[in-house]
Amino acid sequence: MIIYIKISFFVSKMSKRSYAILGTGALGGFYGAKLQKAGLDIHFLLKSDYEYVSKSGLVIESKDGDFTLTQVNAYNDIEKMPQCDVVVVALKTTQNHLLPQMLPSLVRDNGVVLVLQNGLGVEEEVAKIVGNVSIIGGLCFLCSNKVAAGHIRHLDYGQITIGGYASSYNPTGITDKMRQIADDLKSAGISIELVEDLLLGRWKKLVWNIPYNGLSVILNARTDELMSYVHTRKLVEQLMYEVAAGSKSCGRIIPDSFIQTMLDYTVKMKPYRTSMKIDYDERRPLEVEAIFGNPLRKAQAADVNLPQISCIYQQLKFLDEKIRV
Amino acid sequence: MIIYIKISFFVSKMSKRSYAILGTGALGGFYGAKLQKAGLDIHFLLKSDYEYVSKSGLVIESKDGDFTLTQVNAYNDIEKMPQCDVVVVALKTTQNHLLPQMLPSLVRDNGVVLVLQNGLGVEEEVAKIVGNVSIIGGLCFLCSNKVAAGHIRHLDYGQITIGGYASSYNPTGITDKMRQIADDLKSAGISIELVEDLLLGRWKKLVWNIPYNGLSVILNARTDELMSYVHTRKLVEQLMYEVAAGSKSCGRIIPDSFIQTMLDYTVKMKPYRTSMKIDYDERRPLEVEAIFGNPLRKAQAADVNLPQISCIYQQLKFLDEKIRV
Repeated sequence: MIIYIKISFFVSKMSKRSYAILGTGALGGFYGAKLQKAGLDIHFLLKSDYEYVSKSGLVIESKDGDFTLTQVNAYNDIEKMPQCDVVVVALKTTQNHLLPQMLPSLVRDNGVVLVLQNGLGVEEEVAKIVGNVSIIGGLCFLCSNKVAAGHIRHLDYGQITIGGYASSYNPTGITDKMRQIADDLKSAGISIELVEDLLLGRWKKLVWNIPYNGLSVILNARTDELMSYVHTRKLVEQLMYEVAAGSKSCGRIIPDSFIQTMLDYTVKMKPYRTSMKIDYDERRPLEVEAIFGNPLRKAQAADVNLPQISCIYQQLKFLDEKIRV
Repeated sequence: MIIYIKISFFVSKMSKRSYAILGTGALGGFYGAKLQKAGLDIHFLLKSDYEYVSKSGLVIESKDGDFTLTQVNAYNDIEKMPQCDVVVVALKTTQNHLLPQMLPSLVRDNGVVLVLQNGLGVEEEVAKIVGNVSIIGGLCFLCSNKVAAGHIRHLDYGQITIGGYASSYNPTGITDKMRQIADDLKSAGISIELVEDLLLGRWKKLVWNIPYNGLSVILNARTDELMSYVHTRKLVEQLMYEVAAGSKSCGRIIPDSFIQTMLDYTVKMKPYRTSMKIDYDERRPLEVEAIFGNPLRKAQAADVNLPQISCIYQQLKFLDEKIRV
């Protein structure tokens, strides 16, 4: 007689999974609050807003409806947080040197680290830090700002594209854990897309982020300005083709039609100040390595040179270092 | 019996050649004043400073000694200027659309047009405008500013490298006219180098101008800042190698050692705000086409792509157009 017991923290869709939100800002605060409102067990890590939020909770102004959470589980010390099923990394990538101190004690065995960050390569770093967990990457299309302590204003969009991470970014297909996380997010009213190949998804997001984030900072320009001048319009397109060349160097094909769609989409967008431009204007460190440095190094490892992205990268490194002098 | 008469305005070194100076600014005003002081017959075209200079003359403050010319031949109308042996083009290249109205009536048959401008390709344009004249290009290494009407402050350097222009920039070697012009300039205390191949000389000057002029504007930086940050230091070098690739596409070889010399030279230089940065700060049109656009098109015509220079060019076009909105 064989007795077989499957132990899992993800037994059914209906189990109340616990989430740790690392970085309760415009992004982590918004998604975390939505999950708590949907009835999930959420634990927020805060820094500067800890005192305020632990007393007064979180206020979300949103185009989908405003709401307030008067009580939240707020922490300013990772040691005090309970182990969670899902740890959401919603810090800026410029804070990722903190992850080795945060993740191992926080995520349950067989749990999930959900990386909601820009750029490339962060899942690889997470995999080096934690062993017996699943890693899922999420690409957020979100316009949201923190307007005061514990007060987040959600302006537009909000959907998340998630994909599973396996060693060397081999495509995982759609896994059960992805479906379970997606169900939780959907139950909170968040629009979700599942993709079989996270690396392709990340390169596709870079098609937009590399030209617009980079040039908006360097040229002090909004998206509409970059698109209305013929030379920057052309440069944006050339940079997008270089991103596609970088993607191809990793064996991931981005079709020309996708580039055209991104260009058309941006022309139709409202004039937009990119997240990197906001960081620059606020004199916060720029996510240069995750968005530019890592893709360049990935391509370089395959002997593919991306000269215009390299030019933008070097210019941004200069600006990023100079504002911090 | 054959009577052979050689008619020339350049009969001997001692003849007093007449010079027209188009553009009496920091550069044209400085060299023109030096030539007049040396006894040559000089005629200055002015715009905004015409009233002042025609009454009060020119004041030159110079590290080589100050001097004042109380009386100068000043004009604000090209029609009133006498025909001259040598027409010195000392306008910014952004004014070159005016040359077809200026040059034909002003330069004597068998005279010289001396182009003291930055960039590439201007001699070709001049050749299309005037027929029976020699065209000589001059590369000025000069730190000079106009500090008030008719008042020029010469800070450093001053040497001119001149080379003859022939159709398609075929090297002319050292011509008699080059020697005669050089003698006039030397008689005025101006250090002169003669080169056999003007196009090689112009590409070599671009090795400095393209990275430093371009990046100083885009990154709001002086030369010392560009050299003290590792990423811009590297980008400067990469841009220099692209200039050498552009030069090679025209059959002109710039050795690696020249690039190293330019880097070393700039590290040792006093912190310097480039001429293009000064133009940008003063909201004057930038010489983007002469310094960036023409070299790119020359290389493109030989099927050579210069992606990082192209990136800088497109960024500068955006900034140049935007400040004039």
